[in-house]
Amino acid sequence: MPETLEKDFLDLLEGSISTGDEVAIREVLSEMHASDIARAFESCSEEAIATLFRLLTPDIASEVFLEVDERLRDVILSFISSTELVEVVDEMESDDAADVIADLPTRHAATVLDGLDEDESNEVRRLMSYPEDTAGGKMQAELIKVHENATVRETIDEVRRNREEVEKISNVFVVNTAGQLVGVAALDRLLLANWSDPISTIADIDPVKADTELDKEEVAKIFQRHDLITMPVVDSSNRLVGRITIDDVVDVIEEEIFEDFYRMASLNVGERVLDAPMRSFRMRVPWLLVNLGTAFCASSVVKIFEGTIETLVVLAVLMPIVAGLGGNAATQTITVVIRGLALGDIKQRNARRIIAKEATVGFFNGLLIGAVAGLAAFILGSNPMLGLVVFLAMTANLFIAGIGGATVPLILKRLKLDPALSSSIFVTAFTDVGGFFSFLGLAALFIKAGLL
Amino acid sequence: MPETLEKDFLDLLEGSISTGDEVAIREVLSEMHASDIARAFESCSEEAIATLFRLLTPDIASEVFLEVDERLRDVILSFISSTELVEVVDEMESDDAADVIADLPTRHAATVLDGLDEDESNEVRRLMSYPEDTAGGKMQAELIKVHENATVRETIDEVRRNREEVEKISNVFVVNTAGQLVGVAALDRLLLANWSDPISTIADIDPVKADTELDKEEVAKIFQRHDLITMPVVDSSNRLVGRITIDDVVDVIEEEIFEDFYRMASLNVGERVLDAPMRSFRMRVPWLLVNLGTAFCASSVVKIFEGTIETLVVLAVLMPIVAGLGGNAATQTITVVIRGLALGDIKQRNARRIIAKEATVGFFNGLLIGAVAGLAAFILGSNPMLGLVVFLAMTANLFIAGIGGATVPLILKRLKLDPALSSSIFVTAFTDVGGFFSFLGLAALFIKAGLL
Repeated sequence: MPETLEKDFLDLLEGSISTGDEVAIREVLSEMHASDIARAFESCSEEAIATLFRLLTPDIASEVFLEVDERLRDVILSFISSTELVEVVDEMESDDAADVIADLPTRHAATVLDGLDEDESNEVRRLMSYPEDTAGGKMQAELIKVHENATVRETIDEVRRNREEVEKISNVFVVNTAGQLVGVAALDRLLLANWSDPISTIADIDPVKADTELDKEEVAKIFQRHDLITMPVVDSSNRLVGRITIDDVVDVIEEEIFEDFYRMASLNVGERVLDAPMRSFRMRVPWLLVNLGTAFCASSVVKIFEGTIETLVVLAVLMPIVAGLGGNAATQTITVVIRGLALGDIKQRNARRIIAKEATVGFFNGLLIGAVAGLAAFILGSNPMLGLVVFLAMTANLFIAGIGGATVPLILKRLKLDPALSSSIFVTAFTDVGGFFSFLGLAALFIKAGLL
Repeated sequence: MPETLEKDFLDLLEGSISTGDEVAIREVLSEMHASDIARAFESCSEEAIATLFRLLTPDIASEVFLEVDERLRDVILSFISSTELVEVVDEMESDDAADVIADLPTRHAATVLDGLDEDESNEVRRLMSYPEDTAGGKMQAELIKVHENATVRETIDEVRRNREEVEKISNVFVVNTAGQLVGVAALDRLLLANWSDPISTIADIDPVKADTELDKEEVAKIFQRHDLITMPVVDSSNRLVGRITIDDVVDVIEEEIFEDFYRMASLNVGERVLDAPMRSFRMRVPWLLVNLGTAFCASSVVKIFEGTIETLVVLAVLMPIVAGLGGNAATQTITVVIRGLALGDIKQRNARRIIAKEATVGFFNGLLIGAVAGLAAFILGSNPMLGLVVFLAMTANLFIAGIGGATVPLILKRLKLDPALSSSIFVTAFTDVGGFFSFLGLAALFIKAGLL
């Protein structure tokens, strides 16, 4: 919805809320898409949200609940009764229901699970038993399956029976008597087949599938590689236990890139731009404290050369330039390397090649940027020998930045840690130390040699 | 494919290439998925790629060509004849064909277009006329459409006739005599309908659709909001001109986030980790030169206070700490704001609120980090008044970092520029200036007042 249109709806809503005209509010809400209602909630007071949420039909309420961010979910949970929540959760697909219930306080979760009908409750409990970042954690229980002996007509009847409950049906899964997956039949093939044929004649008997334990990132890669819309999930005995649909995979892909992005900047992945200031403060300050530690370490290098700076105070002017360029060059390298790791372009066998490449790029960047910086320092009035020191230190530091920027994420990965985790803080410390040490160290040598 | 398995294939391939055993090579290749062949090409010599590519069947060759990166495409284009290229392009969906041809040198492009059969050539020319970042640029011409007067049986016949040519059929588009879109019929509804019914009775008559000119980011948002698998594209007169499928949208979503990520780090979005060093060098060095300019600006602030540093050289030791923390705090803010802009959480009406929020977070971060830093400076031997200067300067700089980090991307957005574009370089310059100025300026005042 364009921003202006949304604003009209908001104005209408505000008007209706202030007059307390429930009929009018319901009418406005019925015209809005769930994601727009969720967006509108962001600018509403908590009381308004409580009023509005209760006026939604359970199916829209469940969509809105899934669309809002963590903070608004907490607001909704603070006023909604368990009975109301059961109605909302009941409308969700089993994977979403499991995710929502898993995030509730334990007591609340038990009440909601008991409120659902037994089949659904068991289904949700089963889904909740899988780790969130695996195929099992991403799958939904809703799917259409038929026995391998079924005919096409019986399969179509099964689709008919389930089409209300199962969304986005693009294929039917074929299982044997033990419940093991033996094939997948695409809907368009079903459409074109002879109704009396056995389903097995039109099913793909070697379908792409995922084990429940497969990591969600791998699941996403398989979807992209094979351009899938849905994929069956099987347990260790090849029994069909669920399916994953493309919309959940899109979320995984989005999350993965975005988590790298956040982790590199030392941010908690749960933070959002509309969070309350104190929440952001609490989430960011621990990382800044780590950064304070690394900054003190880097400054201890400057401390060593206090005497040198005393002799030639212009060093204090030029030193941040060498360090700062190192920081930015290192950020370029880390970003490319982290992206390469995420895309699977970097493997153990080419890790050395990547480091060598980044060292080379760093060296040539250093030569060029160092030459320009040295020349600029000279033109701006520095002694030519000081320009030479700037040139040499910049070359050294951008070389260090290339090696550090490539090595730090690769080491983190090797240690089975997240390669993006605060690498900007660590590599900046690295290039600060490199910049201060090479520049001030060289200057000290030049001074000692009587060249400066 | 797991890394070890892929390595086995590579070893097999290398073995077969060295013995020149074409039959063996073809056999290994036929076992591999196109994306694995593309991956394997990355570690092959140019000659090996030429040999291997020619042994692929046209359909696999076309998939491989689409999977490899820009650099390998150039390698393939350097040895392939126009006739061979026509065969490869002929296997592609029209949208991919249009993208590939658009990237060819003009003369080469004309030869390939002339080589395709007339219908396909016209189709591709039509698709090439839309800007790449619009719905028109992302759509493909392959789709199944029927006249609104058709019966379900006639519609199913149409699906049957086209199923070889059109991939991922999840619905059929219904048009009137003027070619205007009047509805969409989902495949599962087709399956359950009476064959003699008119298609209009089961079609959704108000389908979600995109205009050819709609921005690709908006297209992606609509897909996500409505959980679509495919969407019709219409021209300004509502005539059906193509369809967009979810796999193309996944690529758009991935690209968008990843471009933000790259632009923030001042990287060219075309760069990949396996690029040749000189290519990376050429792409990165312009940004580092911009950074050199901003770094000299920031250092000119230090230059102003040369006399102050001469009086108290320990200021040169502590000054990078204040500046560095500002840089990292600003990076946190920019990252959150850029993400918020991408998600649509930030609009004109809440821009002020975001800036106020980030200023608040910056201020409280400053108070806490400033207090710890001041105390640490004091404990490490500084005069207590110097600790106070560290505290005040840090508070001021993190406050500046919050305002700058939120304002710079919002201003870039307002100016219709990419908010992520090198914002890390500009905001780092901002916080360097802020850090140096507040810290050295306060120190100068304290010295003048006889407090230091």
